[in-house]
Amino acid sequence: MSQSPRIDLSRLQNDLIELSHIGYDPETKGICRLGFTEADMQARQWLIDKFNKEGFHGRLDSAGNVIGSTSKEGKGPVVAMGSHIDTVPAGGMFDGTLGVLAGLECMRVVRDAGLKCEFPLEVYAFAEEEGRFGGMMGVQAITGELTPQWLETAHDASHVYLKDEMERAGLNAIEALNAHIDPKHFRAFLELHIEQGPVLERIKKPIGVVEAISGVYKWLVRLIGKANHAGTAPMDMRSDAFMGLADFAHEIPRIIAEEGSDKSRLTVGRVELKPGYAHTVPGEAEFTLVGRDTDPQTMRNLADACRRVLSSIARKHNLMFEFEQMSWLEPQAMADEVIQAFCRQAQEMGLDYEVMPSGAGHDAQYMAKITPTGMIFVPSVGGISHAPDEWTHWQDIELGTNLLLNTALEYANASRAKESSA
Amino acid sequence: MSQSPRIDLSRLQNDLIELSHIGYDPETKGICRLGFTEADMQARQWLIDKFNKEGFHGRLDSAGNVIGSTSKEGKGPVVAMGSHIDTVPAGGMFDGTLGVLAGLECMRVVRDAGLKCEFPLEVYAFAEEEGRFGGMMGVQAITGELTPQWLETAHDASHVYLKDEMERAGLNAIEALNAHIDPKHFRAFLELHIEQGPVLERIKKPIGVVEAISGVYKWLVRLIGKANHAGTAPMDMRSDAFMGLADFAHEIPRIIAEEGSDKSRLTVGRVELKPGYAHTVPGEAEFTLVGRDTDPQTMRNLADACRRVLSSIARKHNLMFEFEQMSWLEPQAMADEVIQAFCRQAQEMGLDYEVMPSGAGHDAQYMAKITPTGMIFVPSVGGISHAPDEWTHWQDIELGTNLLLNTALEYANASRAKESSA
Repeated sequence: MSQSPRIDLSRLQNDLIELSHIGYDPETKGICRLGFTEADMQARQWLIDKFNKEGFHGRLDSAGNVIGSTSKEGKGPVVAMGSHIDTVPAGGMFDGTLGVLAGLECMRVVRDAGLKCEFPLEVYAFAEEEGRFGGMMGVQAITGELTPQWLETAHDASHVYLKDEMERAGLNAIEALNAHIDPKHFRAFLELHIEQGPVLERIKKPIGVVEAISGVYKWLVRLIGKANHAGTAPMDMRSDAFMGLADFAHEIPRIIAEEGSDKSRLTVGRVELKPGYAHTVPGEAEFTLVGRDTDPQTMRNLADACRRVLSSIARKHNLMFEFEQMSWLEPQAMADEVIQAFCRQAQEMGLDYEVMPSGAGHDAQYMAKITPTGMIFVPSVGGISHAPDEWTHWQDIELGTNLLLNTALEYANASRAKESSA
Repeated sequence: MSQSPRIDLSRLQNDLIELSHIGYDPETKGICRLGFTEADMQARQWLIDKFNKEGFHGRLDSAGNVIGSTSKEGKGPVVAMGSHIDTVPAGGMFDGTLGVLAGLECMRVVRDAGLKCEFPLEVYAFAEEEGRFGGMMGVQAITGELTPQWLETAHDASHVYLKDEMERAGLNAIEALNAHIDPKHFRAFLELHIEQGPVLERIKKPIGVVEAISGVYKWLVRLIGKANHAGTAPMDMRSDAFMGLADFAHEIPRIIAEEGSDKSRLTVGRVELKPGYAHTVPGEAEFTLVGRDTDPQTMRNLADACRRVLSSIARKHNLMFEFEQMSWLEPQAMADEVIQAFCRQAQEMGLDYEVMPSGAGHDAQYMAKITPTGMIFVPSVGGISHAPDEWTHWQDIELGTNLLLNTALEYANASRAKESSA
């Protein structure tokens, strides 16, 4: 193509703002569209109607995913784009939603410019990405990673069962298995998402090209010592569980320096001391330890080092050490060819970009298992996400969506119908 | 006196066991006699009856203290002994109670041996020592440290007012002010108490002579950073409030080594992280810091060092640091003459003893302000107290009570009536 087509930002803005009204909570000033709730299903219906009004073909699959295709048959292979439109309890208007509505905008550009695509565009709004029921249920249905047993037993933190919530939404949980799509249907999957972190803003670049999605492990650790009167127990006769935890946390920078990378993260996010009285030496410290890295071996090395350091500190403080591995999710690299395509298009557009990891999980990590997959990040103001004051500047939204468009067109082998017929 | 009188352990055992039935809770297997509750008042009545049955004169003063005197007039100066008989919610049978019933046993020994005392013995069971209403109300009434305003407003953690609880017990809170006793009434005050700590057991000595009761300060500290997604926020872009707390706690041994003494204690007993999610960098850490030392200047130096270290760590981690001083209680030295008397008597009895601090607070710290005061500790098995499995071996009870007896007789200028008349 001699001249790149461009997205219409105002059209995309209108969609983002319109959808942000569904599930808006005036109390938190955030958006609440938890997976399969009424607000979530209302948003899905809005999106299906939107596809249809624009002359595309929108449908809800049996797992609650919304799929928008250019043809009724939705024949592949397709260049798939998308993300999710469910939110956390008081979320922002971009997380997930941007990737879906940006995909829709790309389809409109193709339609309006009369482009011919060898591989048609298709847009996915995956169901339940935020993990209310402990997974990424919608995309896992499509990639064939769900089991009947999981669908039967999955429940949220308030013990609402997935199958009950789906039934209220007019869906049958077990039929989610039928949402599986043959990998051959996909030419590639491209996800535009807000960064949800502070890096792009800090380095003043409008675009991040994701090289890998970090793996993550979560441990529940217990250090058990002996509760004692904080006045009568001399410092050297204590088995202070909190002092063990503090010594471990103090070693975290060293552990990362020795065993990790600049993509490593180790976080102690929750701590509970027992008995938890000001005048009592803590007899027990229970805490979460979450580790992340983009490299599988580095992640294992970090975990090994944490275990070694915790063991040795426990011995030093006369504590018992035990931990439970709550979860272990391997890192997922993005496809080299998609990374290169994003970088090439960004260079052609004159965009300053950063190849970077994604510390958070995304639908792309499951799509990457069945088709060449990549992600674009746009900056989050203040690094804030999962909160009402999540924001991304409109000019960055525009740049990111145009990069998505150009890369999708490259994958689609798009050409100007009139030029090619001339 | 040519031959030291000895206490009758079985008589003391019987009293201890009988009193332990009042307020016994079969569920916790502990004793629950919170200040001014029915069980506490029942125990007080039991004690008054006991004094009277033994031929002494027991009475309840207007602050709820039980006082047992050898004469109806209770003329002084007296050698006072005692402690308290209220307990924590699931306490043991020795904490406080031992010092009271040991005093009663000393009075019986004097009676049975027909000793003549220049300064009569008197026993005090102070009211509400465990601090249900935030003080040591009974002894403070006697030493004149209560104010009408405090009596009007003091309440427990469940917002039960002291004045209401006293009214239910048949007492008028404001009249507690009348319990004040002229310091001239006292020749000395001697308190026998369980150690409530591990030191005597560890060093295998049956007797501790307290040199000072530690002062104590309690801070509520807040480190405020920024909550962030634990995946998307790189380690070097975080303001992790917990890492600030961990770094501070890690410095505690150094702070004590540089600014403190072997009597210093610094304890972080309660920690609350916000938001407290495994996958979120803690934006706020609120914790208690309790510091203790027996020397006023050392205590101030410790506090200053804590503030300096917290400030510098807050700067390093990009955190805000604030703290509220919830309480500051100065250390209280025991009287040299009483310490020496205990040591001299212990040597004469051939007892191995340790001069040591008291990390916990005791009635003696208020009595020390008005009369020469000292404390004897006996070992706590496993250092355990304020719990149903609080225990002290009977032979240690016997040794401690005999030391109390001999020292009390020395202060009383006791002599064998028959010998002196012979």
